[in-house]
Amino acid sequence: MNVRGYAARSSDSPLAPWGVYRRDPGERDVRIQIQHCGICHSDIHFARNEWHFTTYPAVPGHEIIGKVIQVGSGVTRHRAGDLVGVGCFVNSCRSCVSCKEGQENFCEGGLRMTFGSFEADGKTPTYGGYATEIVVDEHFVLKIPKTLDPAAAAPLLCAGITTYSPLKYVGLSEGQKIAVVGLGGLGHMAVKLAASFGAEVTVLSRSSSKQGDAERLGATDFVLTRNEGALRPLAGRFDFILDTISAAHDINGPLGCLKRDGTLILVGAPADPLPVAAFRLLGRRRSILGSNTGGIRETQEMLDHCGAHGITSDIERIVPDQINEAYERTLQSDVKYRFVIDCTKF
Amino acid sequence: MNVRGYAARSSDSPLAPWGVYRRDPGERDVRIQIQHCGICHSDIHFARNEWHFTTYPAVPGHEIIGKVIQVGSGVTRHRAGDLVGVGCFVNSCRSCVSCKEGQENFCEGGLRMTFGSFEADGKTPTYGGYATEIVVDEHFVLKIPKTLDPAAAAPLLCAGITTYSPLKYVGLSEGQKIAVVGLGGLGHMAVKLAASFGAEVTVLSRSSSKQGDAERLGATDFVLTRNEGALRPLAGRFDFILDTISAAHDINGPLGCLKRDGTLILVGAPADPLPVAAFRLLGRRRSILGSNTGGIRETQEMLDHCGAHGITSDIERIVPDQINEAYERTLQSDVKYRFVIDCTKF
Repeated sequence: MNVRGYAARSSDSPLAPWGVYRRDPGERDVRIQIQHCGICHSDIHFARNEWHFTTYPAVPGHEIIGKVIQVGSGVTRHRAGDLVGVGCFVNSCRSCVSCKEGQENFCEGGLRMTFGSFEADGKTPTYGGYATEIVVDEHFVLKIPKTLDPAAAAPLLCAGITTYSPLKYVGLSEGQKIAVVGLGGLGHMAVKLAASFGAEVTVLSRSSSKQGDAERLGATDFVLTRNEGALRPLAGRFDFILDTISAAHDINGPLGCLKRDGTLILVGAPADPLPVAAFRLLGRRRSILGSNTGGIRETQEMLDHCGAHGITSDIERIVPDQINEAYERTLQSDVKYRFVIDCTKF
Repeated sequence: MNVRGYAARSSDSPLAPWGVYRRDPGERDVRIQIQHCGICHSDIHFARNEWHFTTYPAVPGHEIIGKVIQVGSGVTRHRAGDLVGVGCFVNSCRSCVSCKEGQENFCEGGLRMTFGSFEADGKTPTYGGYATEIVVDEHFVLKIPKTLDPAAAAPLLCAGITTYSPLKYVGLSEGQKIAVVGLGGLGHMAVKLAASFGAEVTVLSRSSSKQGDAERLGATDFVLTRNEGALRPLAGRFDFILDTISAAHDINGPLGCLKRDGTLILVGAPADPLPVAAFRLLGRRRSILGSNTGGIRETQEMLDHCGAHGITSDIERIVPDQINEAYERTLQSDVKYRFVIDCTKF
């Protein structure tokens, strides 16, 4: 069947209405009426073929919230009427070591991304959440806590888990000091989540206009990094730095702000290699860690944590015909802090 | 008092005989008759002022083995006649967090390097082990297991602890797979130590002439990395990579050879920043860790481990007037694998 949605027809055309193919629900499938879908920077890279693997028409969107409207006969985890979410991937091999450990995001046998992959048949493209419905294997469908605003919960499915997962991996705990570099979609979630773990959060930003927000989001400190020497007083201060910037930028300055044994976590992937001054690592046994979303079990854990702590994304709600404008504003960092599409309006 | 030794008088003059000042032993000091001193690449950087902090005359050497010939009245850990060693540093603040944790190598209050620092008075330069004697606070003097050949044990004080410490820090254990990049002074120790922990060791080298040695030292595999595509079959293979190269080199190829959650350990510090392709880290949650010698407690643990496992360095013995030639050969990697000076001949 085809459902209403939006697609890019080529790398330089705006997104426009398109009939999005969805398979008939199989035995283990959940059919979801999509209510909300966040706009992630990845959507833009994908729609514009900036990663060089897009096939068109292209339907982005991997921060999906909706209601279950039909389940296959073998589905046990979800029921019609449930509020559910779908994140960055909709299937995996289910048999590699990472899948068996519940870390499907690192699947080595063929992770099926929510958009930009192919279905199990190897030829039907996967289409993302800019649509009225989606059909997904129940294993990859998350339960959304009832206490959260569904629209504001949408970005948890990507921005939320992408920042939650490395904070858990490194064991961020109460009283530890963490700096968040860049206060955007990922960064503002990182501040909220790190603060919810009891950590002392400092925001490092090039924009003084972010100071008020940083504090409102839960940061105890804000440091404007635009000025020469701004990082110097922070030397050796942090247990962790979560760097959310996906453009080219200096990480050697921030590395110097880590304590002995501190870790700088990269969750953004700049296109060009980052120059790393090795002595910054050797001198204090520091490390750089890359991280990339999280597995299904951990995503559910993150959602439950957010439910318990009342954590959602700060969002701006839009309707479908504002998507192209929202892309431009996202590219200019002119959003606080995530656009979320009302998918009932497609 | 002055003792016989060798010093560089300027950045471009060869090392030549010089009378090296040693303080009179204080209450906590140990006076050591030096028998052997290894030649570390750092010695050359220092003698030639390549780190831009050398004061002249400069006496290198921080892989020191000798016999205790006198102890201060308050010394409890060593006695005249003991075989002892001195490594990269001879004092520290003793009061910062790192010192209190026995990780003096990360002292934040003023680590006194064996050469290239100043004594506690802030003006007397420290002079290294290219001499007949040295006077060191007992806390910084290590016990050398009697089962080891003293000359071949000298490089353990730097090359040994520099590779042992990160392997312990990351928890290298039996059956894990590790690659050692570069088979030189540090690399050959890394192979021996990693093998002694029960790990499966692969040597990655640009020189086919190292293959026989790699296996003799305890590696199970050898991969010649000079050829295009040589690393491709190793994708996702290793738990750890210990990179001992201190010249500019590519680390993105090796990063791709790490498993999920794998760590590339840097123990050499190239002068220029290393370009790091962030996606290599993000895609498999890999990390890069810098490490830098070890503390006194861990150095003693390493020496005891080497004593128990019969591990020493492969060395070429030289007399003092061969030092300058040995420097040239070290720069050409023409040494298997460490030069050790007979310090009784100064």
